[in-house]
Amino acid sequence: MKRSLLLLALASSMAMADEGMWMPQQLPDIAAELETAGLALNPANLTKLTEFPMAAIVSLGGCSASFVSPEGLVVTNHHCVYNSIAHNSTPENDLLANGFLASKMADEVPAAPGSRVYVTKAVDNVTTQVIDAATAKLSGKKRIDAIEVNQKKLIAECEQDEGHRCRVAAYYGSLEYYLIKQLEIKDVRLVHAPAEGVGKFGGDTDNWMWPRHTGDYGFLRAYVSPDGKSADYHQDNVPYKPDHYLKLAAKGLEEGDFVMALGYPGRTNRHRLPSEVSETFEWSYPNTVQQFKDTLAIIDRVTSTNKDAELKYASRVAGLNNYMKNRQGMLDSFAESDFLQRKTAEHQALTSWVNSSRDNKKAYAKDLITIDKLLAEQHLKARADYALNNATPRLLTVSRYLYRLAQESTKPDTERKAGYQQRDIPRFKAFVAGMERNFDVSVEKALDLHNLTKYVALPKKQRNADFDSALGIKGSMSNSELAALIDSWYANTGLTELSNRTALIDSTPAQFSQSADPFVSAAVALYKADLKQEAEEEELGGKIQQAYASYMRAKMAFMQAQGKAVYPDANSTLRVTYGNVKGRAHGNEDGNAWAPFTTLRGITAKATGEGEFNAPAEQLAAIKAKNYGRYLEPGLNSVPVNYLATLDITGGNSGSAILNSKGEFVGLAFDGTLDSIISDWDYNPANTRSIQVDHRFMLWQMQQVDKATALLKEIGVQ
Amino acid sequence: MKRSLLLLALASSMAMADEGMWMPQQLPDIAAELETAGLALNPANLTKLTEFPMAAIVSLGGCSASFVSPEGLVVTNHHCVYNSIAHNSTPENDLLANGFLASKMADEVPAAPGSRVYVTKAVDNVTTQVIDAATAKLSGKKRIDAIEVNQKKLIAECEQDEGHRCRVAAYYGSLEYYLIKQLEIKDVRLVHAPAEGVGKFGGDTDNWMWPRHTGDYGFLRAYVSPDGKSADYHQDNVPYKPDHYLKLAAKGLEEGDFVMALGYPGRTNRHRLPSEVSETFEWSYPNTVQQFKDTLAIIDRVTSTNKDAELKYASRVAGLNNYMKNRQGMLDSFAESDFLQRKTAEHQALTSWVNSSRDNKKAYAKDLITIDKLLAEQHLKARADYALNNATPRLLTVSRYLYRLAQESTKPDTERKAGYQQRDIPRFKAFVAGMERNFDVSVEKALDLHNLTKYVALPKKQRNADFDSALGIKGSMSNSELAALIDSWYANTGLTELSNRTALIDSTPAQFSQSADPFVSAAVALYKADLKQEAEEEELGGKIQQAYASYMRAKMAFMQAQGKAVYPDANSTLRVTYGNVKGRAHGNEDGNAWAPFTTLRGITAKATGEGEFNAPAEQLAAIKAKNYGRYLEPGLNSVPVNYLATLDITGGNSGSAILNSKGEFVGLAFDGTLDSIISDWDYNPANTRSIQVDHRFMLWQMQQVDKATALLKEIGVQ
Repeated sequence: MKRSLLLLALASSMAMADEGMWMPQQLPDIAAELETAGLALNPANLTKLTEFPMAAIVSLGGCSASFVSPEGLVVTNHHCVYNSIAHNSTPENDLLANGFLASKMADEVPAAPGSRVYVTKAVDNVTTQVIDAATAKLSGKKRIDAIEVNQKKLIAECEQDEGHRCRVAAYYGSLEYYLIKQLEIKDVRLVHAPAEGVGKFGGDTDNWMWPRHTGDYGFLRAYVSPDGKSADYHQDNVPYKPDHYLKLAAKGLEEGDFVMALGYPGRTNRHRLPSEVSETFEWSYPNTVQQFKDTLAIIDRVTSTNKDAELKYASRVAGLNNYMKNRQGMLDSFAESDFLQRKTAEHQALTSWVNSSRDNKKAYAKDLITIDKLLAEQHLKARADYALNNATPRLLTVSRYLYRLAQESTKPDTERKAGYQQRDIPRFKAFVAGMERNFDVSVEKALDLHNLTKYVALPKKQRNADFDSALGIKGSMSNSELAALIDSWYANTGLTELSNRTALIDSTPAQFSQSADPFVSAAVALYKADLKQEAEEEELGGKIQQAYASYMRAKMAFMQAQGKAVYPDANSTLRVTYGNVKGRAHGNEDGNAWAPFTTLRGITAKATGEGEFNAPAEQLAAIKAKNYGRYLEPGLNSVPVNYLATLDITGGNSGSAILNSKGEFVGLAFDGTLDSIISDWDYNPANTRSIQVDHRFMLWQMQQVDKATALLKEIGVQ
Repeated sequence: MKRSLLLLALASSMAMADEGMWMPQQLPDIAAELETAGLALNPANLTKLTEFPMAAIVSLGGCSASFVSPEGLVVTNHHCVYNSIAHNSTPENDLLANGFLASKMADEVPAAPGSRVYVTKAVDNVTTQVIDAATAKLSGKKRIDAIEVNQKKLIAECEQDEGHRCRVAAYYGSLEYYLIKQLEIKDVRLVHAPAEGVGKFGGDTDNWMWPRHTGDYGFLRAYVSPDGKSADYHQDNVPYKPDHYLKLAAKGLEEGDFVMALGYPGRTNRHRLPSEVSETFEWSYPNTVQQFKDTLAIIDRVTSTNKDAELKYASRVAGLNNYMKNRQGMLDSFAESDFLQRKTAEHQALTSWVNSSRDNKKAYAKDLITIDKLLAEQHLKARADYALNNATPRLLTVSRYLYRLAQESTKPDTERKAGYQQRDIPRFKAFVAGMERNFDVSVEKALDLHNLTKYVALPKKQRNADFDSALGIKGSMSNSELAALIDSWYANTGLTELSNRTALIDSTPAQFSQSADPFVSAAVALYKADLKQEAEEEELGGKIQQAYASYMRAKMAFMQAQGKAVYPDANSTLRVTYGNVKGRAHGNEDGNAWAPFTTLRGITAKATGEGEFNAPAEQLAAIKAKNYGRYLEPGLNSVPVNYLATLDITGGNSGSAILNSKGEFVGLAFDGTLDSIISDWDYNPANTRSIQVDHRFMLWQMQQVDKATALLKEIGVQ
């Protein structure tokens, strides 16, 4: 009985402590909580981006990572380097299946086109510069335009520092803006990844699941010019010397230990309005899940007899499966929860609070009503555009981007639309180049046919006449007529050739207009309508920005009045979350629970010798022989593989370094459990667990199986 | 980290406390441990067999049970009343499938023939009377005979108290003897059992498994004559008024709570010698498992088209499956453990200790060598007789018993062989009557053919000439010849008729000799050889008793010299074991653990609508409708069904009342987990968990599903 009460007490104090994706500068505000949880460092030291350990934490753009050697070695998840492994894979030399190990630096191969390592150098609050006095008075599109002008100015100034990339990120529903300055390392190379049977062990079956046995790690290296500047790939480039790098913990974690994840969480929605919750969970996600299912089935069908296409779409298939399971998981959690009712009640409490004081009422009451109307309008529009957006061929989308680029390029750089400036050209180049490895005509044709069939089945007034006309789509085409039309596009387009796509980046609007390419012609034909639609969206967007910021200001004031600390929703900027290594009292079935660690035994138990559970024979042999090296954990009588923790992470945190109480590297975050995902919207401390790969497993696999001797030495393992 | 250490500390203190099947009179010796574990009663009160709560605890002979009302109502496991349900089942009125509820006492039906409720009234140490000075000087068969004479005398004296049943039980490997006096209640009736889809939910699949969702409970009632004496069934009989009965706890258990099981554990082997361990695990159990498998397959084949036979063998099938899984579970645990090495090392340590002092050496050294030789002899003989024993037709066994009874009946009662005295007649009658409901010729023929085929395949010198000659088995009969022979036995025997079997109980040896019944004739023909074999066995048995007691005396002295308390191995006498409600850190697969409670959710999840998981529709509907009544456990958000505890139980503990710290009824022990079973030989605190049905589930099922209103009222639920 005593024990039970004690556990409850501990559990509830932990539950309070574990929520929160804190901006580094907020950490001193929660110093007491961090100390209670077990942090042995001074939180003030975690706020300094150019000091240890923050200086070692990097973004890959979509994934998190960290430096683990003085020679620019970067560790992240296998699934974050998956694309780069696939890019270097061929049917003859299947690096995905076999893994990759550069035995010396000269053997390291370029990562996938567009791969970057971003080192955050500065984060500054620029709210009053983005929404300056003049902008604050504007509304609608004018407000959006002014915000864009201000942001572009800040970015341009920031990027005067050569080799750096800057962005203005919105916080608290665009109530605040910060300028983020990052060193952009462009020569990124693949150093090592274990076989897919390790790095993706369990595949989609185990994805978002526990117990888990995935060796989800891989290594990149950041290269710069011999004089230490950011530079494109060149054989003379040298490894980047980071200001700081993480050191591996000599002692592994135990249940209950303090851990923190340092990384770049992508997006959470904890401050959303009730109408956004209902629209998302009752319309958007169910439709998305169905669309992903259809897409996956088509890709599977078409690539089943085409190994080259299969490799090209491997990354997308992985991504779609991942998202589909994520969304379905959220839908399942939503169905079992009272989230919408609670959200509605919370919003009603906020509204009552606003209306209970004359000042608050004056400041917020109108915007609280306005934001709901505006969001309703936005949701209606999104529904209307849904089938059309799905049905738009990829090459038309590419053509539209490139034609817009051509149009914007006729203006002085500072006046160009954000995203189409000189600074964006490399991204366009990487994008069109990357299609060489992720685009296959047979697959795209099949997807187009499926999506257009659904689109043309819509009543006429739900169709887009401009789109139909631009692509030659008739009133009600039969399936075979549609197929013939699609065939004709791909027979007549040049955009399947890299040289043609690349050429369009430098083409003038006039050159576009003269093109006979069906996708290019369609893009030109749609341009005016596209601009009109964008203007409408920006008009609405401007109104929403204004009202949403006001709603957030009210919500923060309300929360602070209740003594609640407020951290911003995730927005792909550097955050810190902390918690403890911890199993769970309820597991996958009634009467089961989750242990905090898995071990090598589970790999052997799951291994089938094929498919998703194709553990390498060398690995299974090492397990069978109990070749644990120095990584045996006596309490587990094996080597720990993955572990659960109460860390508040989300997509984008993939590859986040996990540090122990002393700031030493103890693994990588790579997943959450399926019933944790709803926490992106509605934090659930009872269910939410992050899944990490234990650094002891990484080292064991590298030492006992993959013989990555030089690499181990580089990261400090003798 | 703090939490982890704390849990470890708690776990290790618990692990020490949980081993032990204590005789009630030993409890004051472990008062401190009981208090630490949470017992709120004075252990001295638990030693009194005629006081609360011990007076409420009864034996069913093979199962444990307890009184739960002043009207002789007895609660035990469903699997302990299974035979009685089957006995009252017919193809037309399948009580096994549908459950049974007597809505008033007049509707209660007789339990299976031979059913008894035994209330232990006294337990006295009679060691010096069993091995008196004269007996202590004897050896071999003479020693056994003298022990038997002494025991019969004690029993006869004890049973002067009409309606009581007495036995002398050996403790500590026959080093000590106790006289157990029990009130024998002979009119036992079935009151209530849930449907098999509740009481046996999960069937053989879930047997010995966790998570578990079995409502393994049922109710009997003890009846006595109107003047309160033990009596055979009679319609005028009245419910027995127990001295005490258990009261149900108003508050259910939580994780960590103190629990104790009061019951009659059958047999453990923790004090065995290394040679017994190796013989059991390396020869006996593997052969037994194979034999059970074959037997089950044959019963399944023959009864698949014979509903009557299926019902008749249902209880045996359940028993065989249970034992088979038990034995295989032990074999698996044994294969993974170093038990035999440890046992051998312990025995070597004992031997060294014995040889290290002149007195000990003189007292024990010779017997330590002798016992090993004697056991080797015994094992050899058991192996030799194995196929023959399996191949002996049941009706031959019955005939031999009855012929022996006829022979013994020619002597004065006190001189008759134990087991064949006047006091044993009712058991013979119940036995031959019970065959009406558990014997089917087609099944027995098939079993005989299978076993005899294996027997006749043995080399001649491994065959038993007396047996062959008595049954007309020739040198090497073909399968069809054997089948014809077997057919002829059953065509010519009268023993398939109850009246003929019953008549034999009162027949004289001369009448047996004149019988033309093939089984009776064979029994007569084998009598001389049987007696000879028995004498040989008793000669060996006498030597073993003497040497084994000496070994145990040495072992106990050795353990006490190390400060270790010693409890006797289980021997079907009343014991108390205590522990706590507790899950387990390692579950069924790597990375999973066991939660301490299962809930109604798991029933719904497992239910398939057929076979072993055929949860009743009414039950599933009540779960779906969340009709939890007062039994909702908020922490579980459901009604608890089964729970795990660290109780040291074994077969025979089935149906044991589980009491909380205040001595209130909180459920019934009904199983252990598969990797707990090895604890019968080698106690393993890390793995061992007992499985209980939670009394909240029993009450919920009775109230919300089975509408057992009157019964609930009787046990104090308003």
